[in-house]
Amino acid sequence: MNLIILFENDFVDGLERVRLQGRRLRHVLEVHRAEVGDELHIGMLGGLAGKGRVTCLNNGCLEMDVELNIPPPEALPATLILALPRPKVLRRVLLSVSSMGVKRVVLMNSWRVEKSFWQSPVLKEDNMRRYLIMGLEQARDTVLPEVVLRPLFKPFVEDELPGLVRETFAVVAHPDAPIPCPRGAGRPVTAAIGPEGGFVPYEVEKLVSCGFSAVRLGDRILRVETAIPFLLSKLL
Amino acid sequence: MNLIILFENDFVDGLERVRLQGRRLRHVLEVHRAEVGDELHIGMLGGLAGKGRVTCLNNGCLEMDVELNIPPPEALPATLILALPRPKVLRRVLLSVSSMGVKRVVLMNSWRVEKSFWQSPVLKEDNMRRYLIMGLEQARDTVLPEVVLRPLFKPFVEDELPGLVRETFAVVAHPDAPIPCPRGAGRPVTAAIGPEGGFVPYEVEKLVSCGFSAVRLGDRILRVETAIPFLLSKLL
Repeated sequence: MNLIILFENDFVDGLERVRLQGRRLRHVLEVHRAEVGDELHIGMLGGLAGKGRVTCLNNGCLEMDVELNIPPPEALPATLILALPRPKVLRRVLLSVSSMGVKRVVLMNSWRVEKSFWQSPVLKEDNMRRYLIMGLEQARDTVLPEVVLRPLFKPFVEDELPGLVRETFAVVAHPDAPIPCPRGAGRPVTAAIGPEGGFVPYEVEKLVSCGFSAVRLGDRILRVETAIPFLLSKLL
Repeated sequence: MNLIILFENDFVDGLERVRLQGRRLRHVLEVHRAEVGDELHIGMLGGLAGKGRVTCLNNGCLEMDVELNIPPPEALPATLILALPRPKVLRRVLLSVSSMGVKRVVLMNSWRVEKSFWQSPVLKEDNMRRYLIMGLEQARDTVLPEVVLRPLFKPFVEDELPGLVRETFAVVAHPDAPIPCPRGAGRPVTAAIGPEGGFVPYEVEKLVSCGFSAVRLGDRILRVETAIPFLLSKLL
């Protein structure tokens, strides 16, 4: 936790005093080992970042005087289109993409996505939000990514995807593609990554017909959690 | 498991027939749902890859006729120097770096590495090898990375690191560095990544005195499992 995300109901006494409890308090005590007078990186969810000075610390409660005056880091100019990963992987992926500064993620269906994945409790809004916030805390960001679920491949790809792709550099990572992933897209990116086992040929064709180029990330098949930073770093 | 790694004692009847048991057999039956006649991607540990055709399948045993004639993918021209991550993270990191094709990894000490991490059972040779092999299976590679442990910072950095760095493009990822990570090193890379909380200034200075440039990966602090593919992809 390199930054403590603050919510509106953390504030007591106007906009300059905050009271922490629960998970964040435990982290500050156990990991940061904060004491009265220490300064901590803080940030208002969706707003400015800054510093908080610990003014009071006793059983189950920590108070800080806060100053919020630093804009969050710039968003990554990328939209990520992911075939829904298995729930255990999805948790790590949400944290990781949030930490990288991706602000728009679409979790879509694909032939090789197991149907049961769509029933996973990880997809509940509160749960996703928890992992996304952990990513913000990691990266010292304050702005939550928007994550949308598209459990129907065809309507998403035919009706919605062409609009998302417009005026972006759109690539789908595909191990069989003859073209290696280019370096530095020079404009905003839409990046699609398939499920374990990859998109099936029909799906790749549909993406290509939306304006995606199929590219390979070298001679290796990477897991989604490795492929995402690899692909985004190459393009951006 | 996109490729099944074979070991010498899997072979029965010369060099063309293989019998699988245990973890790999279960995977082939449960995930690949292999049947007699199916072809599977296989590779000899440290040697050639190829195809295996299932010839016999019964309780607890699968036999294949194998043909090994494809060289493994090229190694990534990179040496990775990592401050020892916490054990849970290390498992994923070993799998990930092995899948990316890194062939030399040094796990080193740093001020912010908790002493207990060096006692973790994950560091036992057999355990590390297990995660590295999972990375090869993921990436369709056959060549194990070499992983060495350097639990003493100073002797490693003073006596050994200058030799490793020679004739490579050496960078240490450091959130406070003024220089952004360059794109495309154009020659082999030595990449160093610190622990949670980062290398302390003395350590960064020591690395710089060995020939490393301190570079930043954007405005964000990434977790090691995200930072590794991000950094390698940018440089290579």
